[in-house]
Amino acid sequence: MSVHAFDAAIALAPQGEGAWQGHTSPAYANMIGPYGGITAAQALNAVLQHPQRLGEPIAFTVNFAAALGDGQFLALARPARTNRSTQHWVVEIRQGDHAVATATAVTALRRETWGATETPVPDAPRPPDVPPSQREGRVEWLNRYEMRFVEGGIPPAWDGAEEQDSRTQLWVRDKPPRPLDFAALTSIADVFFPRIWRRRARLTPLGTVSMTVYFHCSAAQLATTGTGYLLGQAQAQAFRDGYFDQTAQLWNEAGELLATSHQIVYYKE
Amino acid sequence: MSVHAFDAAIALAPQGEGAWQGHTSPAYANMIGPYGGITAAQALNAVLQHPQRLGEPIAFTVNFAAALGDGQFLALARPARTNRSTQHWVVEIRQGDHAVATATAVTALRRETWGATETPVPDAPRPPDVPPSQREGRVEWLNRYEMRFVEGGIPPAWDGAEEQDSRTQLWVRDKPPRPLDFAALTSIADVFFPRIWRRRARLTPLGTVSMTVYFHCSAAQLATTGTGYLLGQAQAQAFRDGYFDQTAQLWNEAGELLATSHQIVYYKE
Repeated sequence: MSVHAFDAAIALAPQGEGAWQGHTSPAYANMIGPYGGITAAQALNAVLQHPQRLGEPIAFTVNFAAALGDGQFLALARPARTNRSTQHWVVEIRQGDHAVATATAVTALRRETWGATETPVPDAPRPPDVPPSQREGRVEWLNRYEMRFVEGGIPPAWDGAEEQDSRTQLWVRDKPPRPLDFAALTSIADVFFPRIWRRRARLTPLGTVSMTVYFHCSAAQLATTGTGYLLGQAQAQAFRDGYFDQTAQLWNEAGELLATSHQIVYYKE
Repeated sequence: MSVHAFDAAIALAPQGEGAWQGHTSPAYANMIGPYGGITAAQALNAVLQHPQRLGEPIAFTVNFAAALGDGQFLALARPARTNRSTQHWVVEIRQGDHAVATATAVTALRRETWGATETPVPDAPRPPDVPPSQREGRVEWLNRYEMRFVEGGIPPAWDGAEEQDSRTQLWVRDKPPRPLDFAALTSIADVFFPRIWRRRARLTPLGTVSMTVYFHCSAAQLATTGTGYLLGQAQAQAFRDGYFDQTAQLWNEAGELLATSHQIVYYKE
Protein backbone atom coordinates (compact mmCIF):
# COMPACT_ATOMS: atom_id res chain seq x y z
CA MET A 1 0.00 0.00 0.00
CA SER A 2 1.35 3.42 -0.89
CA VAL A 3 1.37 6.21 1.70
CA HIS A 4 -1.32 8.87 1.29
CA ALA A 5 0.10 12.24 0.17
CA PHE A 6 -1.23 13.86 3.34
CA ASP A 7 0.57 11.39 5.60
CA ALA A 8 3.79 11.84 3.64
CA ALA A 9 3.41 15.63 3.90
CA ILE A 10 2.93 15.76 7.69
CA ALA A 11 5.54 13.10 8.52
CA LEU A 12 8.03 14.24 11.18
CA ALA A 13 11.33 12.61 12.09
CA PRO A 14 12.25 12.89 15.81
CA GLN A 15 15.34 15.01 16.50
CA GLY A 16 15.43 14.72 20.29
CA GLU A 17 13.31 16.29 23.04
CA GLY A 18 10.41 18.21 21.45
CA ALA A 19 12.12 18.66 18.06
CA TRP A 20 11.11 17.14 14.72
CA GLN A 21 12.37 17.47 11.22
CA GLY A 22 9.80 17.79 8.49
CA HIS A 23 9.90 18.82 4.86
CA THR A 24 7.67 20.81 2.57
CA SER A 25 5.62 18.73 0.16
CA PRO A 26 5.40 19.48 -3.57
CA ALA A 27 1.99 17.76 -3.47
CA TYR A 28 0.65 20.66 -1.35
CA ALA A 29 2.44 23.54 -3.08
CA ASN A 30 0.57 26.84 -3.27
CA MET A 31 1.28 29.91 -5.40
CA ILE A 32 4.15 30.97 -3.09
CA GLY A 33 5.27 28.41 -0.51
CA PRO A 34 3.06 25.60 0.76
CA TYR A 35 -0.72 25.54 1.27
CA GLY A 36 -1.31 27.03 4.75
CA GLY A 37 -3.49 24.12 5.82
CA ILE A 38 -0.60 21.68 5.44
CA THR A 39 1.74 23.92 7.47
CA ALA A 40 -0.96 24.08 10.15
CA ALA A 41 -1.29 20.28 10.13
CA GLN A 42 2.49 19.88 10.40
CA ALA A 43 2.60 22.23 13.40
CA LEU A 44 -0.27 20.40 15.10
CA ASN A 45 1.37 17.07 14.32
CA ALA A 46 4.41 18.08 16.39
CA VAL A 47 2.02 18.24 19.36
CA LEU A 48 0.16 15.05 18.39
CA GLN A 49 3.48 13.14 18.12
CA HIS A 50 4.86 14.45 21.41
CA PRO A 51 5.30 11.63 23.96
CA GLN A 52 4.11 13.92 26.79
CA ARG A 53 0.84 14.87 25.11
CA LEU A 54 -2.25 14.74 27.33
CA GLY A 55 -5.61 14.20 25.63
CA GLU A 56 -6.94 15.51 22.33
CA PRO A 57 -6.78 18.95 20.67
CA ILE A 58 -9.32 21.53 21.87
CA ALA A 59 -7.89 24.74 20.39
CA PHE A 60 -5.13 25.42 17.90
CA THR A 61 -3.79 28.74 16.60
CA VAL A 62 -1.11 29.03 13.94
CA ASN A 63 0.52 32.26 12.80
CA PHE A 64 2.12 32.26 9.35
CA ALA A 65 5.26 34.38 9.69
CA ALA A 66 6.77 33.76 6.25
CA ALA A 67 6.33 31.56 3.19
CA LEU A 68 8.26 28.33 3.81
CA GLY A 69 11.09 27.69 1.39
CA ASP A 70 11.10 24.32 -0.39
CA GLY A 71 12.87 21.73 1.72
CA GLN A 72 13.39 20.84 5.35
CA PHE A 73 12.11 22.57 8.46
CA LEU A 74 12.39 22.04 12.19
CA ALA A 75 9.22 21.83 14.29
CA LEU A 76 9.68 22.58 18.00
CA ALA A 77 6.87 21.77 20.43
CA ARG A 78 6.95 22.19 24.19
CA PRO A 79 4.29 21.74 26.85
CA ALA A 80 4.30 25.16 28.58
CA ARG A 81 1.90 23.94 31.24
CA THR A 82 0.36 20.58 32.12
CA ASN A 83 -2.67 20.55 34.38
CA ARG A 84 -4.78 17.63 35.56
CA SER A 85 -6.93 17.50 32.43
CA THR A 86 -5.55 20.23 30.14
CA GLN A 87 -2.20 20.98 28.56
CA HIS A 88 -0.87 24.15 26.90
CA TRP A 89 1.55 23.93 23.99
CA VAL A 90 3.89 26.38 22.30
CA VAL A 91 5.11 25.46 18.83
CA GLU A 92 7.55 27.06 16.42
CA ILE A 93 8.46 26.03 12.89
CA ARG A 94 11.93 27.14 11.86
CA GLN A 95 13.99 27.15 8.69
CA GLY A 96 17.66 27.97 9.25
CA ASP A 97 17.79 30.70 11.89
CA HIS A 98 14.30 32.00 11.19
CA ALA A 99 10.83 31.31 12.55
CA VAL A 100 8.45 30.71 9.67
CA ALA A 101 5.42 29.90 11.83
CA THR A 102 4.43 30.07 15.48
CA ALA A 103 1.55 28.19 17.05
CA THR A 104 -0.17 27.43 20.33
CA ALA A 105 -2.39 24.50 21.15
CA VAL A 106 -4.54 23.33 24.02
CA THR A 107 -5.11 19.61 24.46
CA ALA A 108 -7.42 18.06 27.04
CA LEU A 109 -9.03 14.95 28.38
CA ARG A 110 -12.73 15.42 27.61
CA ARG A 111 -15.68 13.99 29.48
CA GLU A 112 -19.19 13.46 28.18
CA THR A 113 -21.54 16.31 29.12
CA TRP A 114 -24.76 17.97 28.06
CA GLY A 115 -24.25 19.42 24.61
CA ALA A 116 -25.96 21.40 21.89
CA THR A 117 -25.15 22.78 18.47
CA GLU A 118 -26.29 26.32 17.85
CA THR A 119 -25.08 26.88 14.30
CA PRO A 120 -27.46 24.72 12.30
CA VAL A 121 -26.10 22.64 9.45
CA PRO A 122 -27.11 24.38 6.20
CA ASP A 123 -29.62 22.77 3.87
CA ALA A 124 -27.58 21.32 1.04
CA PRO A 125 -28.03 18.65 -1.62
CA ARG A 126 -26.13 15.42 -0.91
CA PRO A 127 -22.51 15.27 -2.20
CA PRO A 128 -23.22 13.02 -5.23
CA ASP A 129 -25.81 15.56 -6.39
CA VAL A 130 -23.28 18.42 -6.47
CA PRO A 131 -20.76 18.40 -9.34
CA PRO A 132 -17.07 18.41 -8.35
CA SER A 133 -15.08 21.55 -9.04
CA GLN A 134 -12.90 21.38 -12.17
CA ARG A 135 -10.09 23.69 -11.13
CA GLU A 136 -7.27 21.21 -11.49
CA GLY A 137 -3.77 22.32 -12.35
CA ARG A 138 -3.71 25.96 -11.22
CA VAL A 139 -1.88 25.26 -7.96
CA GLU A 140 -0.92 21.77 -6.91
CA TRP A 141 -2.63 21.57 -3.49
CA LEU A 142 -6.06 22.02 -5.09
CA ASN A 143 -5.58 18.56 -6.60
CA ARG A 144 -5.37 17.10 -3.07
CA TYR A 145 -8.99 17.94 -2.24
CA GLU A 146 -12.29 17.00 -3.78
CA MET A 147 -14.49 20.10 -3.64
CA ARG A 148 -18.17 20.26 -4.55
CA PHE A 149 -19.45 23.83 -4.28
CA VAL A 150 -23.00 24.12 -3.01
CA GLU A 151 -22.99 27.93 -2.93
CA GLY A 152 -20.46 30.68 -3.57
CA GLY A 153 -17.98 28.93 -5.84
CA ILE A 154 -15.01 30.51 -7.60
CA PRO A 155 -16.20 33.53 -9.62
CA PRO A 156 -16.83 32.53 -13.26
CA ALA A 157 -14.82 35.55 -14.46
CA TRP A 158 -12.32 37.92 -12.80
CA ASP A 159 -14.29 40.97 -13.86
CA GLY A 160 -14.33 42.81 -10.52
CA ALA A 161 -18.07 42.22 -10.02
CA GLU A 162 -18.95 42.86 -6.37
CA GLU A 163 -21.18 40.42 -4.51
CA GLN A 164 -23.43 41.17 -1.55
CA ASP A 165 -21.66 38.67 0.67
CA SER A 166 -18.67 36.35 0.74
CA ARG A 167 -20.33 33.13 1.86
CA THR A 168 -19.27 29.76 0.45
CA GLN A 169 -20.67 26.32 1.18
CA LEU A 170 -19.03 23.18 -0.18
CA TRP A 171 -18.65 19.46 0.32
CA VAL A 172 -14.98 18.63 0.72
CA ARG A 173 -12.71 15.69 1.50
CA ASP A 174 -9.17 14.51 0.83
CA LYS A 175 -8.49 13.26 -2.69
CA PRO A 176 -8.04 10.31 -2.69
CA PRO A 177 -10.27 9.83 0.37
CA ARG A 178 -8.46 9.34 3.70
CA PRO A 179 -9.96 8.61 7.14
CA LEU A 180 -10.43 11.90 8.98
CA ASP A 181 -8.25 12.77 11.98
CA PHE A 182 -7.31 15.96 13.83
CA ALA A 183 -4.44 16.83 11.48
CA ALA A 184 -6.56 16.39 8.34
CA LEU A 185 -9.44 18.36 9.87
CA THR A 186 -7.04 21.21 10.69
CA SER A 187 -5.81 21.28 7.12
CA ILE A 188 -9.36 21.29 5.75
CA ALA A 189 -10.18 24.30 7.96
CA ASP A 190 -8.01 26.32 5.55
CA VAL A 191 -9.51 24.88 2.36
CA PHE A 192 -11.79 27.82 1.50
CA PHE A 193 -10.58 30.03 -1.31
CA PRO A 194 -10.00 33.64 -0.13
CA ARG A 195 -13.20 35.46 0.88
CA ILE A 196 -12.12 38.64 -0.89
CA TRP A 197 -12.06 36.73 -4.21
CA ARG A 198 -15.62 35.66 -3.49
CA ARG A 199 -16.78 39.13 -2.49
CA ARG A 200 -15.07 40.90 -5.39
CA ALA A 201 -14.15 38.95 -8.52
CA ARG A 202 -10.53 40.17 -8.53
CA LEU A 203 -7.36 38.12 -8.04
CA THR A 204 -6.14 40.28 -5.16
CA PRO A 205 -2.73 39.11 -3.83
CA LEU A 206 -3.02 37.89 -0.24
CA GLY A 207 -1.85 35.52 2.45
CA THR A 208 -3.32 34.12 5.67
CA VAL A 209 -1.64 35.63 8.71
CA SER A 210 -3.27 33.69 11.56
CA MET A 211 -5.74 30.82 11.81
CA THR A 212 -7.50 29.31 14.82
CA VAL A 213 -9.37 25.99 14.94
CA TYR A 214 -11.66 24.90 17.80
CA PHE A 215 -12.40 21.17 17.89
CA HIS A 216 -15.90 20.13 18.94
CA CYS A 217 -15.24 16.45 18.35
CA SER A 218 -13.43 13.40 19.68
CA ALA A 219 -11.03 11.08 17.86
CA ALA A 220 -13.77 8.44 17.97
CA GLN A 221 -16.20 10.80 16.23
CA LEU A 222 -13.61 11.53 13.55
CA ALA A 223 -13.08 7.81 13.06
CA THR A 224 -16.84 7.39 12.56
CA THR A 225 -16.79 10.25 10.05
CA GLY A 226 -14.14 8.24 8.22
CA THR A 227 -13.72 9.07 4.55
CA GLY A 228 -17.08 10.84 4.30
CA TYR A 229 -17.48 14.38 3.05
CA LEU A 230 -17.44 17.45 5.27
CA LEU A 231 -19.82 20.33 4.65
CA GLY A 232 -17.77 23.50 4.97
CA GLN A 233 -19.12 27.01 5.30
CA ALA A 234 -17.03 30.18 5.33
CA GLN A 235 -17.79 33.90 5.42
CA ALA A 236 -15.95 37.13 6.13
CA GLN A 237 -17.13 39.62 8.75
CA ALA A 238 -14.94 42.58 7.78
CA PHE A 239 -12.50 43.72 5.10
CA ARG A 240 -10.49 46.70 6.33
CA ASP A 241 -7.16 48.35 5.49
CA GLY A 242 -5.34 45.32 4.17
CA TYR A 243 -6.83 42.57 6.35
CA PHE A 244 -10.03 40.57 6.27
CA ASP A 245 -11.30 37.83 8.55
CA GLN A 246 -13.05 34.53 7.88
CA THR A 247 -15.30 32.46 10.12
CA ALA A 248 -15.83 28.84 9.13
CA GLN A 249 -17.71 25.74 10.23
CA LEU A 250 -17.16 22.10 9.29
CA TRP A 251 -19.92 19.49 9.69
CA ASN A 252 -19.80 15.79 8.80
CA GLU A 253 -22.46 14.12 6.64
CA ALA A 254 -24.37 13.19 9.80
CA GLY A 255 -24.73 16.93 10.49
CA GLU A 256 -22.37 17.00 13.48
CA LEU A 257 -20.39 20.25 13.86
CA LEU A 258 -16.82 18.92 14.13
CA ALA A 259 -14.88 22.19 14.13
CA THR A 260 -15.22 25.95 13.96
CA SER A 261 -12.40 28.06 12.62
CA HIS A 262 -11.35 31.67 12.12
CA GLN A 263 -8.59 33.31 10.21
CA ILE A 264 -7.29 36.74 9.33
CA VAL A 265 -5.80 37.34 5.92
CA TYR A 266 -3.55 40.07 4.51
CA TYR A 267 -4.56 41.52 1.14
CA LYS A 268 -2.80 43.97 -1.10
CA GLU A 269 -4.31 46.47 -3.51
CA MET B 1 -5.72 63.32 38.35
CA SER B 2 -5.91 59.76 39.64
CA VAL B 3 -4.92 56.84 37.45
CA HIS B 4 -7.80 54.84 35.91
CA ALA B 5 -8.13 51.35 37.43
CA PHE B 6 -7.54 49.81 33.98
CA ASP B 7 -4.25 51.67 33.50
CA ALA B 8 -3.12 50.67 36.98
CA ALA B 9 -4.05 47.05 36.25
CA ILE B 10 -2.12 46.73 32.99
CA ALA B 11 0.95 48.71 34.12
CA LEU B 12 4.22 46.85 33.47
CA ALA B 13 7.65 47.67 34.91
CA PRO B 14 10.57 46.92 32.54
CA GLN B 15 12.88 44.12 33.75
CA GLY B 16 15.34 44.11 30.85
CA GLU B 17 15.08 42.85 27.26
CA GLY B 18 11.50 41.72 26.60
CA ALA B 19 10.61 41.17 30.26
CA TRP B 20 8.14 43.10 32.38
CA GLN B 21 6.86 42.77 35.88
CA GLY B 22 3.16 43.24 36.42
CA HIS B 23 0.77 42.46 39.26
CA THR B 24 -2.76 41.18 39.53
CA SER B 25 -5.35 43.83 40.32
CA PRO B 26 -7.99 43.43 43.07
CA ALA B 27 -10.13 45.83 41.00
CA TYR B 28 -10.47 43.13 38.30
CA ALA B 29 -10.78 40.07 40.55
CA ASN B 30 -13.02 37.27 39.30
CA MET B 31 -14.46 34.28 41.18
CA ILE B 32 -11.09 32.46 41.05
CA GLY B 33 -8.10 34.53 39.90
CA PRO B 34 -8.40 37.66 37.77
CA TYR B 35 -10.93 38.49 35.03
CA GLY B 36 -9.56 36.91 31.83
CA GLY B 37 -9.92 40.13 29.87
CA ILE B 38 -7.45 41.91 32.13
CA THR B 39 -4.90 39.07 31.80
CA ALA B 40 -5.34 39.30 28.04
CA ALA B 41 -4.78 43.07 28.14
CA GLN B 42 -1.67 42.62 30.29
CA ALA B 43 -0.23 40.09 27.81
CA LEU B 44 -0.98 42.36 24.85
CA ASN B 45 0.50 45.30 26.72
CA ALA B 46 3.87 43.52 26.89
CA VAL B 47 3.84 43.66 23.08
CA LEU B 48 2.53 47.22 22.93
CA GLN B 49 5.28 48.39 25.31
CA HIS B 50 8.08 46.57 23.49
CA PRO B 51 10.59 49.03 21.97
CA GLN B 52 10.93 46.85 18.85
CA ARG B 53 7.19 46.76 18.08
CA LEU B 54 6.25 47.38 14.45
CA GLY B 55 2.77 48.75 13.77
CA GLU B 56 -0.54 48.01 15.45
CA PRO B 57 -2.19 44.77 16.58
CA ILE B 58 -3.93 42.70 13.89
CA ALA B 59 -4.45 39.38 15.68
CA PHE B 60 -4.02 38.31 19.28
CA THR B 61 -4.52 34.89 20.87
CA VAL B 62 -4.19 34.24 24.60
CA ASN B 63 -4.35 30.83 26.25
CA PHE B 64 -5.26 30.73 29.93
CA ALA B 65 -3.13 27.97 31.42
CA ALA B 66 -3.96 28.51 35.10
CA ALA B 67 -5.70 30.97 37.41
CA LEU B 68 -3.17 33.65 38.36
CA GLY B 69 -2.37 33.84 42.04
CA ASP B 70 -2.72 37.26 43.69
CA GLY B 71 0.47 39.24 43.33
CA GLN B 72 3.29 39.73 40.85
CA PHE B 73 3.85 38.08 37.49
CA LEU B 74 6.49 38.26 34.78
CA ALA B 75 5.40 38.99 31.20
CA LEU B 76 7.87 37.87 28.52
CA ALA B 77 7.41 39.09 24.94
CA ARG B 78 9.71 38.38 22.01
CA PRO B 79 9.42 39.19 18.32
CA ALA B 80 9.76 35.73 16.72
CA ARG B 81 9.83 37.24 13.24
CA THR B 82 9.92 40.76 11.85
CA ASN B 83 9.02 41.28 8.21
CA ARG B 84 8.77 44.48 6.19
CA SER B 85 5.25 45.31 7.36
CA THR B 86 4.30 42.53 9.80
CA GLN B 87 5.71 41.21 13.03
CA HIS B 88 5.02 37.95 14.92
CA TRP B 89 5.11 37.86 18.71
CA VAL B 90 5.31 35.10 21.29
CA VAL B 91 4.30 36.00 24.84
CA GLU B 92 4.33 34.11 28.10
CA ILE B 93 3.07 35.17 31.52
CA ARG B 94 4.84 33.42 34.37
CA GLN B 95 4.46 33.21 38.12
CA GLY B 96 7.39 31.56 39.87
CA ASP B 97 8.53 28.68 37.67
CA HIS B 98 5.17 28.21 35.98
CA ALA B 99 3.53 29.54 32.85
CA VAL B 100 0.06 30.86 33.69
CA ALA B 101 -0.73 32.13 30.20
CA THR B 102 0.73 31.90 26.71
CA ALA B 103 -0.08 34.24 23.84
CA THR B 104 0.80 35.11 20.28
CA ALA B 105 0.24 38.38 18.48
CA VAL B 106 0.64 39.77 15.00
CA THR B 107 1.27 43.47 14.57
CA ALA B 108 1.43 45.28 11.25
CA LEU B 109 1.70 48.57 9.44
CA ARG B 110 -1.67 48.97 7.73
CA ARG B 111 -2.46 50.86 4.56
CA GLU B 112 -5.81 52.21 3.46
CA THR B 113 -7.62 49.87 1.05
CA TRP B 114 -11.08 49.02 -0.21
CA GLY B 115 -13.13 47.76 2.68
CA ALA B 116 -16.52 46.41 3.63
CA THR B 117 -18.32 45.15 6.72
CA GLU B 118 -20.33 42.00 6.24
CA THR B 119 -21.70 41.47 9.72
CA PRO B 120 -24.27 44.24 10.00
CA VAL B 121 -24.54 46.19 13.24
CA PRO B 122 -27.68 44.96 15.02
CA ASP B 123 -30.67 47.25 15.44
CA ALA B 124 -30.55 48.42 19.02
CA PRO B 125 -31.96 51.31 21.05
CA ARG B 126 -29.38 53.98 21.91
CA PRO B 127 -27.40 53.46 25.14
CA PRO B 128 -29.32 56.03 27.25
CA ASP B 129 -32.55 54.20 26.39
CA VAL B 130 -31.29 50.88 27.79
CA PRO B 131 -31.13 50.57 31.59
CA PRO B 132 -27.73 49.68 33.08
CA SER B 133 -27.32 46.24 34.62
CA GLN B 134 -27.54 46.18 38.41
CA ARG B 135 -25.25 43.25 39.14
CA GLU B 136 -22.81 45.07 41.34
CA GLY B 137 -20.94 43.28 44.05
CA ARG B 138 -21.00 39.65 42.93
CA VAL B 139 -17.45 39.68 41.59
CA GLU B 140 -15.32 42.79 41.61
CA TRP B 141 -14.46 43.10 37.89
CA LEU B 142 -18.14 43.52 37.02
CA ASN B 143 -17.97 46.91 38.74
CA ARG B 144 -15.31 48.03 36.22
CA TYR B 145 -17.74 47.92 33.27
CA GLU B 146 -20.97 49.67 32.53
CA MET B 147 -23.23 47.12 30.84
CA ARG B 148 -26.61 47.83 29.29
CA PHE B 149 -28.19 44.61 28.02
CA VAL B 150 -30.18 44.99 24.82
CA GLU B 151 -30.94 41.28 24.48
CA GLY B 152 -29.99 38.10 26.32
CA GLY B 153 -29.13 39.45 29.75
CA ILE B 154 -28.29 37.40 32.82
CA PRO B 155 -31.08 34.87 33.48
CA PRO B 156 -33.57 36.25 36.04
CA ALA B 157 -33.44 32.95 37.96
CA TRP B 158 -31.05 29.98 38.02
CA ASP B 159 -33.83 27.50 37.40
CA GLY B 160 -32.21 25.50 34.62
CA ALA B 161 -34.62 26.81 31.98
CA GLU B 162 -33.19 26.11 28.54
CA GLU B 163 -33.20 28.84 25.89
CA GLN B 164 -33.27 28.38 22.12
CA ASP B 165 -30.03 30.26 21.63
CA SER B 166 -27.21 31.87 23.60
CA ARG B 167 -27.08 35.29 21.94
CA THR B 168 -26.42 38.44 23.96
CA GLN B 169 -26.30 42.04 22.79
CA LEU B 170 -25.21 44.84 25.10
CA TRP B 171 -23.82 48.34 25.23
CA VAL B 172 -20.61 48.33 27.22
CA ARG B 173 -17.77 50.64 28.24
CA ASP B 174 -15.24 51.08 31.00
CA LYS B 175 -16.62 52.42 34.28
CA PRO B 176 -15.65 55.18 34.79
CA PRO B 177 -15.35 55.91 31.05
CA ARG B 178 -11.82 55.74 29.60
CA PRO B 179 -10.70 56.53 26.04
CA LEU B 180 -10.64 53.28 24.05
CA ASP B 181 -7.33 51.75 22.95
CA PHE B 182 -6.16 48.28 21.85
CA ALA B 183 -5.60 47.02 25.40
CA ALA B 184 -9.06 48.13 26.59
CA LEU B 185 -10.73 46.71 23.46
CA THR B 186 -9.00 43.37 24.09
CA SER B 187 -10.27 43.29 27.65
CA ILE B 188 -13.82 44.16 26.54
CA ALA B 189 -13.73 41.24 24.06
CA ASP B 190 -13.99 38.98 27.13
CA VAL B 191 -16.79 40.93 28.82
CA PHE B 192 -19.67 38.64 27.87
CA PHE B 193 -20.96 36.43 30.67
CA PRO B 194 -20.58 32.71 29.82
CA ARG B 195 -22.78 31.55 26.93
CA ILE B 196 -23.72 28.34 28.74
CA TRP B 197 -25.31 30.43 31.53
CA ARG B 198 -27.35 32.20 28.85
CA ARG B 199 -28.35 28.99 27.09
CA ARG B 200 -29.21 27.13 30.29
CA ALA B 201 -29.99 29.06 33.45
CA ARG B 202 -27.56 27.08 35.60
CA LEU B 203 -24.41 28.37 37.31
CA THR B 204 -22.18 25.78 35.63
CA PRO B 205 -18.52 26.10 36.78
CA LEU B 206 -16.27 27.08 33.88
CA GLY B 207 -13.21 28.94 32.66
CA THR B 208 -12.05 30.38 29.35
CA VAL B 209 -9.23 28.30 27.87
CA SER B 210 -8.29 30.33 24.79
CA MET B 211 -9.40 33.64 23.28
CA THR B 212 -8.56 35.27 19.94
CA VAL B 213 -9.19 38.89 18.95
CA TYR B 214 -8.95 40.24 15.39
CA PHE B 215 -8.64 44.02 15.13
CA HIS B 216 -10.44 45.69 12.24
CA CYS B 217 -9.50 49.20 13.39
CA SER B 218 -6.65 51.67 13.68
CA ALA B 219 -5.44 53.55 16.77
CA ALA B 220 -6.90 56.71 15.20
CA GLN B 221 -10.32 55.06 14.89
CA LEU B 222 -10.15 53.97 18.53
CA ALA B 223 -9.24 57.54 19.52
CA THR B 224 -12.32 58.78 17.64
CA THR B 225 -14.44 56.18 19.43
CA GLY B 226 -13.13 57.71 22.64
CA THR B 227 -15.24 57.08 25.72
CA GLY B 228 -18.32 56.11 23.72
CA TYR B 229 -20.15 52.84 24.18
CA LEU B 230 -19.43 49.67 22.24
CA LEU B 231 -22.24 47.43 21.05
CA GLY B 232 -21.16 43.88 21.80
CA GLN B 233 -22.74 40.73 20.46
CA ALA B 234 -21.81 37.18 21.46
CA GLN B 235 -23.14 33.72 20.66
CA ALA B 236 -21.99 30.12 20.97
CA GLN B 237 -21.82 27.75 18.02
CA ALA B 238 -21.39 24.47 19.90
CA PHE B 239 -21.44 23.05 23.42
CA ARG B 240 -19.80 19.62 23.48
CA ASP B 241 -18.14 17.35 26.05
CA GLY B 242 -16.91 20.01 28.42
CA TYR B 243 -16.10 22.84 26.00
CA PHE B 244 -18.17 25.50 24.25
CA ASP B 245 -17.13 28.27 21.88
CA GLN B 246 -18.16 31.90 21.58
CA THR B 247 -18.04 34.23 18.60
CA ALA B 248 -18.28 37.95 19.33
CA GLN B 249 -18.37 41.29 17.56
CA LEU B 250 -17.74 44.79 18.90
CA TRP B 251 -19.02 47.90 17.09
CA ASN B 252 -18.69 51.53 18.15
CA GLU B 253 -21.66 53.89 18.34
CA ALA B 254 -20.98 54.98 14.74
CA GLY B 255 -21.64 51.36 13.70
CA GLU B 256 -18.02 50.56 12.80
CA LEU B 257 -17.00 46.95 13.46
CA LEU B 258 -13.83 47.44 15.53
CA ALA B 259 -13.06 43.85 16.49
CA THR B 260 -14.25 40.28 16.14
CA SER B 261 -13.37 37.70 18.75
CA HIS B 262 -13.65 34.01 19.52
CA GLN B 263 -13.08 31.96 22.60
CA ILE B 264 -13.37 28.41 23.83
CA VAL B 265 -14.47 27.75 27.37
CA TYR B 266 -14.21 24.72 29.66
CA TYR B 267 -17.35 23.78 31.58
CA LYS B 268 -17.94 21.18 34.23
CA GLU B 269 -21.07 19.22 35.02
